[in-house]
Amino acid sequence: MELKTIENIDIVKSSTTKINEVDFDNISFGNTFTDHMLICDYANGEWQKPIIQPYAPFTIDPSAKVFHYGQAIFEGMKAYKDEQDDVWLFRPEENFMRFNKSAVRMAMPEVPEEVFLGGLKKLLELEKDWVKKGNGSSLYIRPFMIATGPGVVAAPAMFYRFMIILSPAKSYYSGAVKVVVAEHFSRAANGGIGAAKAAGNYSGQFYPTKLANEKGYQQIIWTDDATHTKLEEAGTMNVFFRINDTLYTAPTSERILDGITRKSLIDLAKRENIKVEVRSVLVDELVNAAKDGSLKEIFGAGTAAVISPISGFAYKEEYFELPNVEDSIAMDLKDKLTKIQTKLADDTFGWTVKI
Amino acid sequence: MELKTIENIDIVKSSTTKINEVDFDNISFGNTFTDHMLICDYANGEWQKPIIQPYAPFTIDPSAKVFHYGQAIFEGMKAYKDEQDDVWLFRPEENFMRFNKSAVRMAMPEVPEEVFLGGLKKLLELEKDWVKKGNGSSLYIRPFMIATGPGVVAAPAMFYRFMIILSPAKSYYSGAVKVVVAEHFSRAANGGIGAAKAAGNYSGQFYPTKLANEKGYQQIIWTDDATHTKLEEAGTMNVFFRINDTLYTAPTSERILDGITRKSLIDLAKRENIKVEVRSVLVDELVNAAKDGSLKEIFGAGTAAVISPISGFAYKEEYFELPNVEDSIAMDLKDKLTKIQTKLADDTFGWTVKI
Repeated sequence: MELKTIENIDIVKSSTTKINEVDFDNISFGNTFTDHMLICDYANGEWQKPIIQPYAPFTIDPSAKVFHYGQAIFEGMKAYKDEQDDVWLFRPEENFMRFNKSAVRMAMPEVPEEVFLGGLKKLLELEKDWVKKGNGSSLYIRPFMIATGPGVVAAPAMFYRFMIILSPAKSYYSGAVKVVVAEHFSRAANGGIGAAKAAGNYSGQFYPTKLANEKGYQQIIWTDDATHTKLEEAGTMNVFFRINDTLYTAPTSERILDGITRKSLIDLAKRENIKVEVRSVLVDELVNAAKDGSLKEIFGAGTAAVISPISGFAYKEEYFELPNVEDSIAMDLKDKLTKIQTKLADDTFGWTVKI
Repeated sequence: MELKTIENIDIVKSSTTKINEVDFDNISFGNTFTDHMLICDYANGEWQKPIIQPYAPFTIDPSAKVFHYGQAIFEGMKAYKDEQDDVWLFRPEENFMRFNKSAVRMAMPEVPEEVFLGGLKKLLELEKDWVKKGNGSSLYIRPFMIATGPGVVAAPAMFYRFMIILSPAKSYYSGAVKVVVAEHFSRAANGGIGAAKAAGNYSGQFYPTKLANEKGYQQIIWTDDATHTKLEEAGTMNVFFRINDTLYTAPTSERILDGITRKSLIDLAKRENIKVEVRSVLVDELVNAAKDGSLKEIFGAGTAAVISPISGFAYKEEYFELPNVEDSIAMDLKDKLTKIQTKLADDTFGWTVKI
């Protein structure tokens, strides 16, 4: 795949760089940004000329609809640098297509491919020194769109801003986490916006997660909101269960994000002759599998952490510790996927795209 | 009730006013703002000194969590001017308490009463010329809080901004609307944030409402997301049904906002010896009542419109037109409530508060 290019774009370069102030080996996720950002405004029914300019705060009206009605969507992607100093993206067209699906669900205008992918290419060319090699390093990419149009009336805005900001990242791995299975709270409704990467899906999780943290759990495994019997996502990630030697993950739905890491892992596991079943997993199944010892692994899957292993789960005041497995499928898949992403292994799928 | 006052506040007055440019008799809802706004920032674990300053755009970081995770809440209130030119609020303490309930649910800091109500009092004192008398005029008040803290990590922010902006309004009445009963889409999940006035609850409605608009319906009556059998809210309002001479409205829940207009109408109806039953109303009941002629009225209830009458509803491709009733309970209650709010009738409930 070739990235679409864009010519009709303004570039205003920063006269300084922050890159020498950054300790790339000790960097917390999502808090450091590169020197430039991309901005493209939507007005009068069309997308205006995009501009790449120095990263900086911008001005916005207090009545902008993003503040009042949460009309906002985003994507998460990563750029990697290989041994030859080439910069690579992982399945960027998937992020682009999902972004526009989210846009439709949130009644926002779709972003043209040349702005999203072509603009990203230009931005990465400018910021390529911020993409570091090896050691799980990457440049996290955050495309997002907000409703900048004014007015405290609950209706879609007339003005929008699409932006891309970049944040250098180390491997996100912070050890295996303990989780609690949601018995009361939930993240998405049937017929709701759970399948969109919409801003409103995330802040609703903060309070339940805080309550879980206070009880000693780092994350929540979300269940369906109607019955709380089906396991759906883990924190902000898709979730996989290994029972004996089969991986299980829920099918995507209106409540479950169509994760790119999730579907890449499914394809990768199949290539490796690991059995994968895409079907709803019931909480009862999980508890029974934990009790009879057939539950081997649970892990979250998402762009930021790639794979986040889970060491145990609580349900109805009972805690189930997972065994230490020697042949961790989670760690094996993480290693294989990361090697594809960083060009250390053959990309037999054609997932990687050179900038 | 007396409004709490605040002394520790800065006031920077605008050197100009836009008031003479405003045609108060022809004003669209929510698009015109007064000369000043209130800002109070939360930093280092505490609320800073609030400031009233000229209404203007402000600067914010592109990575502010409100843009990415929708951590944002608001309230809607109105100020009215009586014949003696005094300015009145309607149950402002209810808005204040609900705001802080929303804050807790969204993992945001609670706003002190002297900032929310005391600050509002100061702001209204400064903007009292913007509150017009009679004819359904009011000054719509929009307190809101956004997560200004930076970082593309899905976790609560460390910095917040509380603001109040004001928008002059005429009566919101735009005629009776045709609605469609939701069979697929929904606005809230069990264990979700539907009971909070959180930004993310609103933008999710835009797309389903757009689809309804395309079919000739102005609004949607939301049903429970699990079964789509229970009638819950209408658009962004609570909803009432009149079957024969009894009013029905759903109990508040995790999915249904505890509307201040809703509960005021319930109290007012009881005072007027109108039978009110607070219980879930099923879609089937509504259809049957429409068929046998016992369904007399449906109306939405909320701060902006007070009462919004509904002329008919569609369900499963069938449209049910409501009868023209001569003794409309909706219109009678709207008249009585508006008269209390504007001090044209005795406030036997003690709901109105003088600025």
